[in-house]
Amino acid sequence: SDRYPSAHVLDVHGRLFLLDCGEGTQILMARHGISHFKISDICITHLHGDHVFGLFGLLSTMSLKGRTAPVNIYAPAGLDAILTFFKEQFGDGLMFDVRHVRTDYKEKTLITETDDMELWSFPMKHSLPCWGYLFREKEPARNVNKAAISELRLTVPEILELKAGRDVEREDGSLLRVSALTYKPGEPKSFAYCCDTAPFSREAEYLEGVNLLLHEATFAGDMEEMADRTGHSTTAQAAATALEAGVKKMVITHFSSRYRHPEVLLEEVTKTYKNAFLAEEGRVFEI
Amino acid sequence: SDRYPSAHVLDVHGRLFLLDCGEGTQILMARHGISHFKISDICITHLHGDHVFGLFGLLSTMSLKGRTAPVNIYAPAGLDAILTFFKEQFGDGLMFDVRHVRTDYKEKTLITETDDMELWSFPMKHSLPCWGYLFREKEPARNVNKAAISELRLTVPEILELKAGRDVEREDGSLLRVSALTYKPGEPKSFAYCCDTAPFSREAEYLEGVNLLLHEATFAGDMEEMADRTGHSTTAQAAATALEAGVKKMVITHFSSRYRHPEVLLEEVTKTYKNAFLAEEGRVFEI
Repeated sequence: SDRYPSAHVLDVHGRLFLLDCGEGTQILMARHGISHFKISDICITHLHGDHVFGLFGLLSTMSLKGRTAPVNIYAPAGLDAILTFFKEQFGDGLMFDVRHVRTDYKEKTLITETDDMELWSFPMKHSLPCWGYLFREKEPARNVNKAAISELRLTVPEILELKAGRDVEREDGSLLRVSALTYKPGEPKSFAYCCDTAPFSREAEYLEGVNLLLHEATFAGDMEEMADRTGHSTTAQAAATALEAGVKKMVITHFSSRYRHPEVLLEEVTKTYKNAFLAEEGRVFEI
Repeated sequence: SDRYPSAHVLDVHGRLFLLDCGEGTQILMARHGISHFKISDICITHLHGDHVFGLFGLLSTMSLKGRTAPVNIYAPAGLDAILTFFKEQFGDGLMFDVRHVRTDYKEKTLITETDDMELWSFPMKHSLPCWGYLFREKEPARNVNKAAISELRLTVPEILELKAGRDVEREDGSLLRVSALTYKPGEPKSFAYCCDTAPFSREAEYLEGVNLLLHEATFAGDMEEMADRTGHSTTAQAAATALEAGVKKMVITHFSSRYRHPEVLLEEVTKTYKNAFLAEEGRVFEI
């Protein structure tokens, strides 16, 4: 197979998270117009070569192009030795910080957060210790009804209080109620990334209700024994997990090179879980 | 640019030499049907990332596919640290020897040889210590004229002696002369690889008369200052070297990503050196 090893990009309100970094990641990014400068965060599931061998090239190119903004790499503890080697051997002229944030906890753990999102890691089940990632938007501020703003001549401080979810008592004794004057702008979205892993006991719990699940489906359904031995999922297993967790949409990835036409894997998945799609080079999914 | 970093393959009578191993080399090999099993030797010019970042992936894939035959890597001393790191971090299950053969000598030096070829390295001029490679076929055994074989009823021992270049005295006192009964099957071929380098004083001497020169031409002729500062060659410099050395054919490679259409670089070269061609993905040249 001449397909590339693992690499996906998640855009969270303009902040780009790279999900794993297999060999050739920077070449694919250039091909699809994804600037190295926009990548601020890299999530590494585990330290097998097909998930990390693109890091050196990507960091080197960032350096050559003059990057100064830091890069956060979420990865198990073992990444330290890899980064130390990289900086010693190839780090001349590196002008930005490469910050390693550990992810290797025994339970689902909050790894980092911003004003509008949280990033969690959770342990999976692979031939090497391996962690999945869950991105959750935080509950957004409420919107105030436009009609109410003009009818009640709401002031800016009143609007800010209402958006923050607090009722406001006016000087005339009347009460501006959050429940009456505001509405949710939409449900917070979530995204999860599970690769490489065999099914594990808490998987459906961790993935409950996510809007988009990017899940490996390395093998067809008839290779469950092989999948189990190597710490991977079959199509049927990925589909069962998505169903059990009530996932809204699933994209399958990480196909064994034995499958020249991964469409056959998608067909197996959609027999039981309908809203599934194939990860293909350059393909973009909306959450 | 989404062009790949450096990697070329030289086929010497079926023995494949990989010339540098930039990121994505194994992906390109798969795309163009070059089996990992056939690569026995890898020549690394220097230890910049764009010439070595494909090694880890290639060696890992060789290992995954069950390779047992050794791989020879010709490279400067610094490769040791890189290989040690690779074996420690990613070497689990590696079933074949990775042999590092040093190339970092101050003069042109014979690095290895087989029955029919020699491999030499020579120091070049780059921002990091860097070595070029020269492949020379040995003088082949002479062929015996078919007509003479039947007319003189040559025996097998007589033929073998003649092929080895030795005259044979027969029992009747007559002399079978090499000069009269044999001919050269052709001139030994040679190939050289110069990348990355600025022009250096002994370059034409080292490259004298080679049949095919694979030479870098990173910059156009108007960027000589930049080329000099970064240890690269311009088109005009590569052409001048090829002319001075009496090279039979030249292929230019390693184009700066600023040139979207490397054809403009080839046009500059062929203004002074005619028999030049562009290295492009998947292109094959006969020596």
